[in-house]
Amino acid sequence: MKYDSLCVSAIRALSIDMINRAKSGHPGMALDAAPLAYTLFSRFLTADPKHPDWIKRDRFVLSAGHASAMLYSLLHIAGYAVTMDDLKNFRQLGSKTPGHPEYGVTPGVDCTSGPLGQGISQAVGMAIAETHLRALYPDSDDLFSHYTYCLCGDGCLQEGVSCEAAALAAKLKLNKLILIYDANQSTLDGPSSWTFEEDVGMRFRALGWNFIHVTDGNDIEALAAALDSARHSDSPTLIQMDTLIGYGSVNQGTSKTHGAPLGLEDGEHAKKVYGWDYPPFVVPDEVYMTMRESFQLRGETAYAEWEKAKQAYFVKHPEASNLIDESLSHQDINRVFKGAPAFDKAKDEATRSISGSLLNLVQQELPNLIGGSADVASSVKTDIKGGVDYSPAHREGTVLRFGIREFAMASVCNGIALHGGLRTYCGSFMVFADYFKAAIRMSALQHLPVVYLMSHDSIAVGEDGPTHQPVEQLAMLRSIPNLAVYRPADAVETAAAYRAAFTATDHPTVIILTRQKVPQLLDSSDAKTTDGGYIVSKEKRTPMATVIASGSEVSLAIEAQKRLLQDGIDIRVVSMPELNIFLSQPKKYQKEVLGSPRDKRLYIEMCTPYGPFALADDVMCVNAFGASGPASQVMEKMGFTVDRVVERVRRVVARPLERD
Amino acid sequence: MKYDSLCVSAIRALSIDMINRAKSGHPGMALDAAPLAYTLFSRFLTADPKHPDWIKRDRFVLSAGHASAMLYSLLHIAGYAVTMDDLKNFRQLGSKTPGHPEYGVTPGVDCTSGPLGQGISQAVGMAIAETHLRALYPDSDDLFSHYTYCLCGDGCLQEGVSCEAAALAAKLKLNKLILIYDANQSTLDGPSSWTFEEDVGMRFRALGWNFIHVTDGNDIEALAAALDSARHSDSPTLIQMDTLIGYGSVNQGTSKTHGAPLGLEDGEHAKKVYGWDYPPFVVPDEVYMTMRESFQLRGETAYAEWEKAKQAYFVKHPEASNLIDESLSHQDINRVFKGAPAFDKAKDEATRSISGSLLNLVQQELPNLIGGSADVASSVKTDIKGGVDYSPAHREGTVLRFGIREFAMASVCNGIALHGGLRTYCGSFMVFADYFKAAIRMSALQHLPVVYLMSHDSIAVGEDGPTHQPVEQLAMLRSIPNLAVYRPADAVETAAAYRAAFTATDHPTVIILTRQKVPQLLDSSDAKTTDGGYIVSKEKRTPMATVIASGSEVSLAIEAQKRLLQDGIDIRVVSMPELNIFLSQPKKYQKEVLGSPRDKRLYIEMCTPYGPFALADDVMCVNAFGASGPASQVMEKMGFTVDRVVERVRRVVARPLERD
Repeated sequence: MKYDSLCVSAIRALSIDMINRAKSGHPGMALDAAPLAYTLFSRFLTADPKHPDWIKRDRFVLSAGHASAMLYSLLHIAGYAVTMDDLKNFRQLGSKTPGHPEYGVTPGVDCTSGPLGQGISQAVGMAIAETHLRALYPDSDDLFSHYTYCLCGDGCLQEGVSCEAAALAAKLKLNKLILIYDANQSTLDGPSSWTFEEDVGMRFRALGWNFIHVTDGNDIEALAAALDSARHSDSPTLIQMDTLIGYGSVNQGTSKTHGAPLGLEDGEHAKKVYGWDYPPFVVPDEVYMTMRESFQLRGETAYAEWEKAKQAYFVKHPEASNLIDESLSHQDINRVFKGAPAFDKAKDEATRSISGSLLNLVQQELPNLIGGSADVASSVKTDIKGGVDYSPAHREGTVLRFGIREFAMASVCNGIALHGGLRTYCGSFMVFADYFKAAIRMSALQHLPVVYLMSHDSIAVGEDGPTHQPVEQLAMLRSIPNLAVYRPADAVETAAAYRAAFTATDHPTVIILTRQKVPQLLDSSDAKTTDGGYIVSKEKRTPMATVIASGSEVSLAIEAQKRLLQDGIDIRVVSMPELNIFLSQPKKYQKEVLGSPRDKRLYIEMCTPYGPFALADDVMCVNAFGASGPASQVMEKMGFTVDRVVERVRRVVARPLERD
Repeated sequence: MKYDSLCVSAIRALSIDMINRAKSGHPGMALDAAPLAYTLFSRFLTADPKHPDWIKRDRFVLSAGHASAMLYSLLHIAGYAVTMDDLKNFRQLGSKTPGHPEYGVTPGVDCTSGPLGQGISQAVGMAIAETHLRALYPDSDDLFSHYTYCLCGDGCLQEGVSCEAAALAAKLKLNKLILIYDANQSTLDGPSSWTFEEDVGMRFRALGWNFIHVTDGNDIEALAAALDSARHSDSPTLIQMDTLIGYGSVNQGTSKTHGAPLGLEDGEHAKKVYGWDYPPFVVPDEVYMTMRESFQLRGETAYAEWEKAKQAYFVKHPEASNLIDESLSHQDINRVFKGAPAFDKAKDEATRSISGSLLNLVQQELPNLIGGSADVASSVKTDIKGGVDYSPAHREGTVLRFGIREFAMASVCNGIALHGGLRTYCGSFMVFADYFKAAIRMSALQHLPVVYLMSHDSIAVGEDGPTHQPVEQLAMLRSIPNLAVYRPADAVETAAAYRAAFTATDHPTVIILTRQKVPQLLDSSDAKTTDGGYIVSKEKRTPMATVIASGSEVSLAIEAQKRLLQDGIDIRVVSMPELNIFLSQPKKYQKEVLGSPRDKRLYIEMCTPYGPFALADDVMCVNAFGASGPASQVMEKMGFTVDRVVERVRRVVARPLERD
């Protein structure tokens, strides 16, 4: 079109100005990928800047989040609520234009990115969500159908999580997923060729992807042809476009343009290369007009059509429409545990099994729930009775088989949650939370209510040994902001954790589950579980000490309490299913629950002592890796027996109160 | 050979017996991969069971660690110090035959495995080490030359870390690395085809691997031919062998054989299929004899030749020989900081820059040091002046360019450390420790002295925003057993951390570094840094409170101390560079250092409060994700200013002492 070149230059010039003004940012890819971004928005991407959360919009994931200046410039000229002042505030505290794209901060930003590779895996999740929604509700293409575009660089493709996600995308034939790889010849430290020489196209074709190569990333017509062709593929498409990093800079093609501002002089030089002669932060009307005509009007029309289609759909499918409305406004959570589940108090049962029953119940209550495990469904008990596997032939299936790809699993779930209209969960052995910690962080950072089910939660894993026994993962998880971490002690507490997890709307939840059977506690409390901690077994008269525990250690503490009472030692047992919530309670509540002074508390937990120290100096913890052997023997070796608890409590009680 | 079939059956029968006896274990792959393992040991692998730590031995990594029963059976018949009683004690507490292979526990086990994918990446590290040692010392092929074999299943190939490592292996042309992929058609949950349908050979060829397909994993001659061919490749080789999981079981080919014992009946059935009719745990002499002749004698001869070659080498290259001997016996650590570095106390400097100088010094002192970064060498300051990149053309290069592959980076370093003869380090932004936490755990579990350099250690990262600002990673790292985690406050403390890290022999160390400049402290102490914590700025008379801090917050605390003193408030400042070491000191020392009672302590650290809680209830921490903006503004927003510290200390001092 007439102003193609001017528009591309506007994106580039604004990016230069923003980064120069902030004295911070990454010009490299922002400059070289501008033609692609412009082509995509002006010719293909359907979205309405006035309704940035529209469920049917095409998604655009900037996996290479460091190119944020380009994205913000584009959103600005495309008519999103990103003003010139916002651009001038690039990377400033509280601005709409933070260093890396942040979901929820900037209209038009479809996900947080920056941690490399995870943009791609989140895009895979979005593409799954799109196909699933269309299959879940009858004749709903007009409501949900869209493309998912993702732009990445070498870094994203080198990261393991993208390899996992790419394999999954091919296996699931996500043909409306289009990944553009900006082969700009440079990474942060130097030429890409230092570390990256593979045949990318061949690798992706080996996985089952469609591959298109555009040899000139400045060639808008070639990019458009590639995008057009990709949209008609029956498998996901990778478009490789060859570019020069920092296009226009005197240092173009080198890593010098990757992460440092060009500065005024080189900035002027680059603008000359583009033929751009406007002052900083000035964009001619032709650019806005072009974007209005090529992008905005198209989006507005599409949105209006969607509104009509939705009204028609309601008439034809009132029931489905209700479900859709509920899920889009998070009202679906009201269906969780309408009838509270009942448990047999006499039955010892592993909390992973209890979790299995609860998950099946929630799946019935939430038809829009989709999730699965990383090849441990049978162990973590995420199998859904009568559940259908999600596959190209069964897009309506609610069971995701992620394969042995934990990181992609969690990140795909983030993508599903970002998409909207669905709720999601995933399951893993707790020790392998290590493999996807970076994705859990992204759930928390993006306020996504993903539910993580983690079983085999301690040295009680037994024979599989230290590689499979989590000891430090509880500290790792509890230390993540905005993440609820429940370690329930029995069925009642597990159900409470489930309710909290599946009714949350602005944070993820981890539910930590035992492999081994645990007894049902006499006085476990559904309501108090979500207070974080509570008295689960009170003293007879006055507590001589308080024992705090979570999960399988609560029943151990109660056993010790009984034994001690026979000797006239009267203690309180506190169950602490969610330590952080408890720590956020009023001090008065905490004091009431804990009863004893700090010197007279013992915290028992089969993990490293970081969390427990918050409430007690006397901690019985596992401050070493575990061992292979029958679970009971491993626990005995590590000191988790009634005898040892009794002995430790005796010491706590006998010791004179002292201030350190 | 005559007894090939009998030997294979012996491995299978023993595996069945071990797993049945333990009532726990994974028969699936143990049964189907036995022919490969036998072929490899009897015809190719050169190792001497009497010297399992021999530096020149061929390495065998069982990446699919759950097939441990097969490995132990093989080691037993091959003459390693793994007795029949050890086999009978499979998966029992304290046995030589734990659930998954554990380095240091079983002679002949070259690394710990089980966490999938990491066996492959560790094998890549071993292969790098082999080529590097041969290039490092002149004419040393006879001393170091060997192959690295690795056996994996679908799971390992699906994991992202193996994709990263495979790309690196191809780029580095590690032609003596031979990876065997047991395509046994099943994973834990079901058929492999549920999640894995790619063209594996094509994917690896796209990376630059040699690929060989053996369609019958029971065909010893075909396996031998493939292994022989692989040994002559000029790139790493992937051998895919098609097998049936749980070969011989009535459930062969299905996931039922993956993780559950066959039981006596099915065990008998399988043994019939093999034509094996010996009682449980009985192996005929022919098997031992065959292994003695085909494997042991070959290894013993090779070892004897190596001893001779070593003697001859000493005569010819006395200097290199001394270096080699020192490095093999860990005496190389005596060279670290022979002359202690001096620092300019007047110069503000980022600890990452100080780290850069120290690393260059250590590289000069330790010629056997090899390491690098995941594309952030210029930011984390791991650049080595005049350093040569390790590459196919420069195997002597000591600078590893890992690419944007953090997980493989750390795991490759584990492989290098496992190999012996070398010391290693790697660098990353601290927030991306999330991406390789699982490998750090493996360093700690295997007692490997890998050094992790992590910079950009707090919200002071500034503009890059919350995705790049670590807040919870300090808790994640400190909670890992057997890992030293230093967060030095200035040059003196950084040097002390370096000395500790590079003289350690049985544990890994993390050194956490600032992006921003910090002042040099008047009384920072080299010696006391390794005590974990110490008084860095004493009170004038009697401490009214004690402020504890680490890293960049120490100077903040000292500033506040000065201000408070002007108002007559006399406090102590404690620097806490390594919290866990401090917590392991005698209580008496801890008390002396801390001075004030618990109620009168304030712990300041720009991270989530898990660690700090160990010593104080009053904590100034970051209990939320960070924000994008200039560093000073972000820190102010989060409360890390002298004013705020002064204000908090005032409150601590003013508050009456109370127990809770």
